[in-house]
Amino acid sequence: MAKNFPTRAENFSQWYNELVIKADLAENSAVRGCMVIKPYGYAIWEKMQAVLDKMFKDTGHSNAYFPIFIPKSFFSKEASHVEGFAKECAVVTHYRLKNSPDGKGVVVDEDAKLEEELIIRPTSETIIWDTYKNWIQSYRDLPLLINQWANVVRWEMRTRLFLRTAEFLWQEGHTAHATKDEAFNETITILNLYADFAEKWMALPVVKGVKTESERFAGAIDTYAIEALMQDGKALQSGTSHFLGQNFAKAFDVKFLTKENQLEHVWATSWGVSTRLIGALIMAHSDDKGLVLPPKLAPIQVVIVPVFKNTDQLRLISEQVLPIKKSLEDRGISVKYDDRDTHKPGWKFAEYEFKGIPVRLTIGPRDIEQGTMEVARRDTLQKSVIQISDIIEYIPGLLDDIQQNLFERNLDFREKHTYRVDTWGEFVDVIENKGGFASAHWDGTSETEDQIKEKTKATVRVIPMDNPKEEGTCIFSGKPSSERVLFARAY
Amino acid sequence: MAKNFPTRAENFSQWYNELVIKADLAENSAVRGCMVIKPYGYAIWEKMQAVLDKMFKDTGHSNAYFPIFIPKSFFSKEASHVEGFAKECAVVTHYRLKNSPDGKGVVVDEDAKLEEELIIRPTSETIIWDTYKNWIQSYRDLPLLINQWANVVRWEMRTRLFLRTAEFLWQEGHTAHATKDEAFNETITILNLYADFAEKWMALPVVKGVKTESERFAGAIDTYAIEALMQDGKALQSGTSHFLGQNFAKAFDVKFLTKENQLEHVWATSWGVSTRLIGALIMAHSDDKGLVLPPKLAPIQVVIVPVFKNTDQLRLISEQVLPIKKSLEDRGISVKYDDRDTHKPGWKFAEYEFKGIPVRLTIGPRDIEQGTMEVARRDTLQKSVIQISDIIEYIPGLLDDIQQNLFERNLDFREKHTYRVDTWGEFVDVIENKGGFASAHWDGTSETEDQIKEKTKATVRVIPMDNPKEEGTCIFSGKPSSERVLFARAY
Repeated sequence: MAKNFPTRAENFSQWYNELVIKADLAENSAVRGCMVIKPYGYAIWEKMQAVLDKMFKDTGHSNAYFPIFIPKSFFSKEASHVEGFAKECAVVTHYRLKNSPDGKGVVVDEDAKLEEELIIRPTSETIIWDTYKNWIQSYRDLPLLINQWANVVRWEMRTRLFLRTAEFLWQEGHTAHATKDEAFNETITILNLYADFAEKWMALPVVKGVKTESERFAGAIDTYAIEALMQDGKALQSGTSHFLGQNFAKAFDVKFLTKENQLEHVWATSWGVSTRLIGALIMAHSDDKGLVLPPKLAPIQVVIVPVFKNTDQLRLISEQVLPIKKSLEDRGISVKYDDRDTHKPGWKFAEYEFKGIPVRLTIGPRDIEQGTMEVARRDTLQKSVIQISDIIEYIPGLLDDIQQNLFERNLDFREKHTYRVDTWGEFVDVIENKGGFASAHWDGTSETEDQIKEKTKATVRVIPMDNPKEEGTCIFSGKPSSERVLFARAY
Repeated sequence: MAKNFPTRAENFSQWYNELVIKADLAENSAVRGCMVIKPYGYAIWEKMQAVLDKMFKDTGHSNAYFPIFIPKSFFSKEASHVEGFAKECAVVTHYRLKNSPDGKGVVVDEDAKLEEELIIRPTSETIIWDTYKNWIQSYRDLPLLINQWANVVRWEMRTRLFLRTAEFLWQEGHTAHATKDEAFNETITILNLYADFAEKWMALPVVKGVKTESERFAGAIDTYAIEALMQDGKALQSGTSHFLGQNFAKAFDVKFLTKENQLEHVWATSWGVSTRLIGALIMAHSDDKGLVLPPKLAPIQVVIVPVFKNTDQLRLISEQVLPIKKSLEDRGISVKYDDRDTHKPGWKFAEYEFKGIPVRLTIGPRDIEQGTMEVARRDTLQKSVIQISDIIEYIPGLLDDIQQNLFERNLDFREKHTYRVDTWGEFVDVIENKGGFASAHWDGTSETEDQIKEKTKATVRVIPMDNPKEEGTCIFSGKPSSERVLFARAY
């Protein structure tokens, strides 16, 4: 079970790429830029989905499903959407194959050409707002709070497993409201929901804030985001919530009759998180020995490894282990008991450490005599000996500790890597040498932002929520500024 | 809330189409042949998914995700797959749009043409077996038991909501085994699982059996299916489980080292059910007053409608209702309390009847005085008066009764509409006038099956499992036959 792969310090990027593959999370497919999400990786996504889905429903949202295809003309209806949104899309032009004349395969049937090309959805605002036009007539039809779990396609040229792939899985919420305030509140409700999910479930501290114009979603009035810091000091945008104003309602002519019998355009939001979150989870917590998963999202939370020389020993061990497994499962903890005799304990230790199982319990004949088990936690790699009689009480608290420790470790890392800088020299030092967030004054123009990006590859990640006002001068242009913003290089 | 739509007797097909739309289950989208699944329809699909997903996991399967795109050349690798599988597929030829020269929209960028076209998956055997090639080396890697929840596209020309749409949602299982027996057993395990789901959850009795050659999945050795009978006497194939033999393993060169150190091709199965099941659910149980949903799959199982003239009355009613709602919910029953004052009770009664909520409770001031509620069940439309103090105990049993009654009603219908016929005249009478299954002798040839289909539109739905042997003569050709098979017209 030797997993030869680079350390984070040696090559963070390669460490990530190899970890994803060797831990059986995902792999590249035969189709350029598309990934296969393997069972272990998909199990993490299922856990994320279950939690988020419940959070959406608890806040009044329902799921629905809209077509994967979007007529090409729809993209042109919202001017800034078509202008700003990437045009790298998969385009369907034909609807039939036929046997090739040489009898050796199939070819595209040129007689089956679509009148209008269809685009595989890169995001669904256009097709959904075209649908909402028929669903919304009166204030009684509002708010409309809908979410969709779906696959989307953006023809990225440089792809990386989970972080940037041509096809990915996500959820996209699309809501319609009677007033600007209500739509704005929805935008912020979801931003907070995403932040809660990241912090409480992924153990990932995030900064909430609003994007600058250049990082705004094409078609939005404002884009809010949660940003997390990875172990290499680069930021990762982990979720976005867009206040769309009346832009899409106007583009698709969606009006409603108010209580006062006035015809007005509807207010909108959209928001999403994707399988990219799995990439964030890996890069935030894992180490040179492999994956580290927060207990709340780990597909297996506890693994029990018996150490035995013969079937009699295994039988004695299993007599102790099976009731413990059952008791833990009754408390909602997922437990794997690996009693295979085809692999040695040492192989199993390495395997489960590499796969990031939060807690490993080991029990052998001597433990049975002494009524103890060895407990190893994955986050700190610490081992301790616990009385078997105490184990059921001990494990839930230990899982909570691990969850909390991962969060605090990451928060501590972020605090140590968030620098207040006031000069261009300090700024460059943070971005190029230290890594992390540079909290700096900026003159508020896209021109300056572009030039900073060109020189350092750093962008404004967010203008944090409730950002304190502070007079200062832009670290690049020297022009006046009224608040600091967070810069970083980003995924 | 008057829903004008035809009765089943007047026009079954139109009854179905209008019911789906008026009950807010689904609608046609702006994209030809693709549907929008609305929240109420999607909620039924979510219930189905949750149950099936648990059944798959309880039988050892894991979920994974494979790309939506399949390189065109993959289809040619398995000879009978490419020969037999419908060629109506969505074909991606380009990967970029660009602003149109006139500045008025977007056009396909002809410079961004793919070297090899990509097909949107109509089913995933080819891309999955191409992947399995790298996952399977030894008997230790087997069995591989994987399921995928996904969207698929088949460019159907004549579409109907849920029953036949260009894009639909489904699950597809793809398993790999070391031996023929094990793969065959998996095929039958899943067939039985599907039948259990249909009968216990959908309240839909099904016939399990094997398909004839002409209805077999392209690339399979044998296709097993569950067939249900709809209220118009037409059959609906509700799930298929394919024994693929070594066909795909050979096409994609997937071999494994046996325990005896021999290199052999892997054995395979694939199986799926889709959003088509929602169509089956509707056509099996619903009536001229609207939807009828089996309690186990109803998004809302109990609706409570208060009858009140003023807020004081509503307050008194709510004091009674809220604890009941809570108690029922604690027992896992989904309850809606519709205390809106914007709609009259009569409107609500009609609405929930139309939406197929299994149980409606009504409570007004006089009920409060008498300590009673009115209970109306959707399946029989019967009403009764129950003591409020008994209601918590009464409801779970009532829901079970309704579930059971729907199953038995449908079973009774199927038994009354399954005819043993021995002459061509009787056969035609069943197919054209009576509707239902004709159990008849057939000579076993595709030629005869084709001619029967041409003359009557009826096909062999299945050769039932454990079919008794019986000497007879084919109702069409008069040639000898050793068993009866089930014919019907089908969706």
